[in-house]
Amino acid sequence: MEFKVKLLGIRSGGKQIIVIDDEHASLMGIHSSDRVLVKYKERNIIAIANVATDFPKKKLGIYEEVQEKLEAQEGETVTVRPAERPESLGYIRDKIMGRRLREQEIKSIILDVVERHLSDIELAAFVTSLSIHRTSIDEVESLTKAMVETGKTIDFGKVAILDKHSIGGVPGDKTTILVVPIVAAAGFTIPKTSSRAITSPAGTADRIEVLCPVDLTGEEIKSVVKKTNACLTWGGALDLAPADDLLIQVEYPLSIDPLLLPSIMSKKKAIGADYIVVDIPTGRGAKIKTIGEAQALAQEFIELGKRLDIHVQCGVTFGEQPIGYAIGPALEAREALSTLMGEGPIDLVNKAASLAGLLFEMMGAKDGIQEANKILKSGKAEEKLREIIAAQGGDPDVKIEDIEVGNKGEEIRSEETGRVQWINNRAMAQIAREAGAPKTKGAGILLKKKLGDKVAKGDVMYQIYSESAQKLETSLLLAQNLNPVGVTGKFGEKMLVDRIPSKKIYYEKPFMLER
Amino acid sequence: MEFKVKLLGIRSGGKQIIVIDDEHASLMGIHSSDRVLVKYKERNIIAIANVATDFPKKKLGIYEEVQEKLEAQEGETVTVRPAERPESLGYIRDKIMGRRLREQEIKSIILDVVERHLSDIELAAFVTSLSIHRTSIDEVESLTKAMVETGKTIDFGKVAILDKHSIGGVPGDKTTILVVPIVAAAGFTIPKTSSRAITSPAGTADRIEVLCPVDLTGEEIKSVVKKTNACLTWGGALDLAPADDLLIQVEYPLSIDPLLLPSIMSKKKAIGADYIVVDIPTGRGAKIKTIGEAQALAQEFIELGKRLDIHVQCGVTFGEQPIGYAIGPALEAREALSTLMGEGPIDLVNKAASLAGLLFEMMGAKDGIQEANKILKSGKAEEKLREIIAAQGGDPDVKIEDIEVGNKGEEIRSEETGRVQWINNRAMAQIAREAGAPKTKGAGILLKKKLGDKVAKGDVMYQIYSESAQKLETSLLLAQNLNPVGVTGKFGEKMLVDRIPSKKIYYEKPFMLER
Repeated sequence: MEFKVKLLGIRSGGKQIIVIDDEHASLMGIHSSDRVLVKYKERNIIAIANVATDFPKKKLGIYEEVQEKLEAQEGETVTVRPAERPESLGYIRDKIMGRRLREQEIKSIILDVVERHLSDIELAAFVTSLSIHRTSIDEVESLTKAMVETGKTIDFGKVAILDKHSIGGVPGDKTTILVVPIVAAAGFTIPKTSSRAITSPAGTADRIEVLCPVDLTGEEIKSVVKKTNACLTWGGALDLAPADDLLIQVEYPLSIDPLLLPSIMSKKKAIGADYIVVDIPTGRGAKIKTIGEAQALAQEFIELGKRLDIHVQCGVTFGEQPIGYAIGPALEAREALSTLMGEGPIDLVNKAASLAGLLFEMMGAKDGIQEANKILKSGKAEEKLREIIAAQGGDPDVKIEDIEVGNKGEEIRSEETGRVQWINNRAMAQIAREAGAPKTKGAGILLKKKLGDKVAKGDVMYQIYSESAQKLETSLLLAQNLNPVGVTGKFGEKMLVDRIPSKKIYYEKPFMLER
Repeated sequence: MEFKVKLLGIRSGGKQIIVIDDEHASLMGIHSSDRVLVKYKERNIIAIANVATDFPKKKLGIYEEVQEKLEAQEGETVTVRPAERPESLGYIRDKIMGRRLREQEIKSIILDVVERHLSDIELAAFVTSLSIHRTSIDEVESLTKAMVETGKTIDFGKVAILDKHSIGGVPGDKTTILVVPIVAAAGFTIPKTSSRAITSPAGTADRIEVLCPVDLTGEEIKSVVKKTNACLTWGGALDLAPADDLLIQVEYPLSIDPLLLPSIMSKKKAIGADYIVVDIPTGRGAKIKTIGEAQALAQEFIELGKRLDIHVQCGVTFGEQPIGYAIGPALEAREALSTLMGEGPIDLVNKAASLAGLLFEMMGAKDGIQEANKILKSGKAEEKLREIIAAQGGDPDVKIEDIEVGNKGEEIRSEETGRVQWINNRAMAQIAREAGAPKTKGAGILLKKKLGDKVAKGDVMYQIYSESAQKLETSLLLAQNLNPVGVTGKFGEKMLVDRIPSKKIYYEKPFMLER
């Protein structure tokens, strides 16, 4: 059926959407969310129909994504007909019914994800089914490979590529900013791409951005890696495994995360990683709660690595409290830099050296952690970070005090005397976000006491930083409600760790989907 | 944050959608599909955000549904902020995780469905989870009640309300057009609302529409029922259980049907039904394949009825072939009318009398089927149908030959001699749809032979009717491919009932979601 183009001037953010009036939609048997084939001259694309009840008759409203592909102008004639239902939809139905999918079937789904042939409804049904039925290791392998094949890759040449990844969930985890320069200073190649925060107070890319630009192209990354053996960039715009980015948009509102392994490993495979250490922070307030769960997940990473020809080792790390003392992009950048300069909290130093050490041992070192500590103490890692900062366009001579933090602050004091028995990670993250992190780079929290520390009544437990009096206010209110630090005279004396009111006072968005 | 209204002039077909630029969305922490609270003067509504990457800054693009509720004009100032995630979303997540939901939780979900607080992604996750985890009878009851409570109802006064429903799936099933007048002629009240076809060649509303208008308001229905004890109308625009209509829009593209019972029973409860007979056609080519499945489903209908204070009986009917000989709205209207006039196929007569008889026995009759047959033979049922046609605004004196059928036709002849061993319902339905049914009222199929009939080579098996030479052509092609009738000299001699090529030549949309 022929329609006249009506440019809507709206971007959907990727989806190929067209709008048609209900009368002509009905004549063609097209319902909302159905796929249609739109033809203009030799070009034709599959778009998702939005059937509108009050739209001009025989006009085809097109979103900008459709306009760019068709290159049709206002008023021009295009033909529209119902598209065949893609084969992949049958496989999504099979998945709903609980069937294990084969490699070719998964490829067909992932290809249709990337080509935008599937509607939000279909994507949501797919990830919900994966979440309920779980994925077999064969499916995980097929998903990962399909995600790599449908995206771009970066080739760093014949050298061995090392990488480090944390599955996240612990606030203040700036370990990557130490591991990468330690490993690169030892002469290995480690091109690290990171994500920004979605639900946490800072992602690695947010932290690095305080020091230098992170939004580099693939070619720029290759040049930085050539100069320094490393990079510390944002991976979001590189089109590595784009299917993952599209599926996350559907997983996020549902707070489900069935594609954790394919999501992480596809990005690694796309940059040609050969050796990866995966950090699995484990603890009550982390994503992974028990050592048993951590070990099961580690086995999956290792097995998937074998199938992808990547050597994987996992480190299960202590995740019961934030790493170091700082939470929030600028505060964390300060802490990372000062740690590289020799003044760092013991847990951060140990975690960075342990993970770098695992990589060194994979590359043949006898005592990896000792080697990592040696490089850290020598100042070579600091030097390397400054090289990377310079290569990415930042100031290599940046000093701690150059990094600005929020000028509005409030200290939270203890009402008890004793020792810190627990720290609630999620509560800390929420308070830091309420103060403005990660959008406001200088906002966040500086802890003064950590697990096991002695505390006298009236001692400062932590300090909130903000750049807005209003945000400081709301974060203080939240801090009072959530009470994120437990102090007690004797271990066991304070058993009430958290209270869950029958009516929630604050909705906790689960920490998922951060990669 | 304040925005200026930009009217988009698009209807979404119900959804409350707003469009904002990505920069300001990001500042507020709003992602696509997030809910936002839009305030204008004293009015405020929850809408679903569509974050657009190339939209004018600080403009709030609003769909017409939003404009109607807010009554804000172009350029006026509105405030936007992230809305809290509705509580119901937590229950949807619980359902994904497999938890049984309580009555209040289900109410909260259904209310948010009707108030359009849930996005397609969330609705899809909900129906997918229901489909995978199945629903308990308590959940089914809660879903049904919540669907009734969130919609309109029609009150026909103190009289007992009878009703009839088929779960569908068998082509040519015009039984309702006989049952309703038989029951009404006996003095009972039976206000029947039906659906149009979605994936089948004719819904009851499509068949009746050949005889008289079916798109009546609630008040008009009451007036027709007052005059005639009955009505035969389309239920789609009455806002009875609107949650069901909204959920079907999501179930349909996924071809899943987890809400069959609440969907059917909520509509019945909304019109105050007291006695219902549910027809469960059973057979290889029907929705329900085996007597065992039919009995299990019947038990659920009966139990749900008890909980809703509705007397339910189920009839498991023979669904191995089309009912009567006609498929397609006009051909079926002809056949129904001629059956009421005394000239009907034995299976249609028997099915109608059996189902009407079950209702009569529920109301105290000793031999319901005999009573139904008596009314049918007496001509009172024909008289009653003509009364209903008149009351709904049609021609009460309509003759068989007044009903126009497609003027293009083709006869399909047998290549074998023997008896009809099987007829493929789905194939018949697809061929009829390809010929133009239900959009083209006169299109369809007239069978000449049915199960067990003797056939000589060259005998006409069925005839296709169409109003378009092109549609006739494609339906013939499909008929050759699908070969829907099996003829054999001896039962058992022709064992190949269907062939499933490794590459599908024609996508079979499952027959679901027809109510």
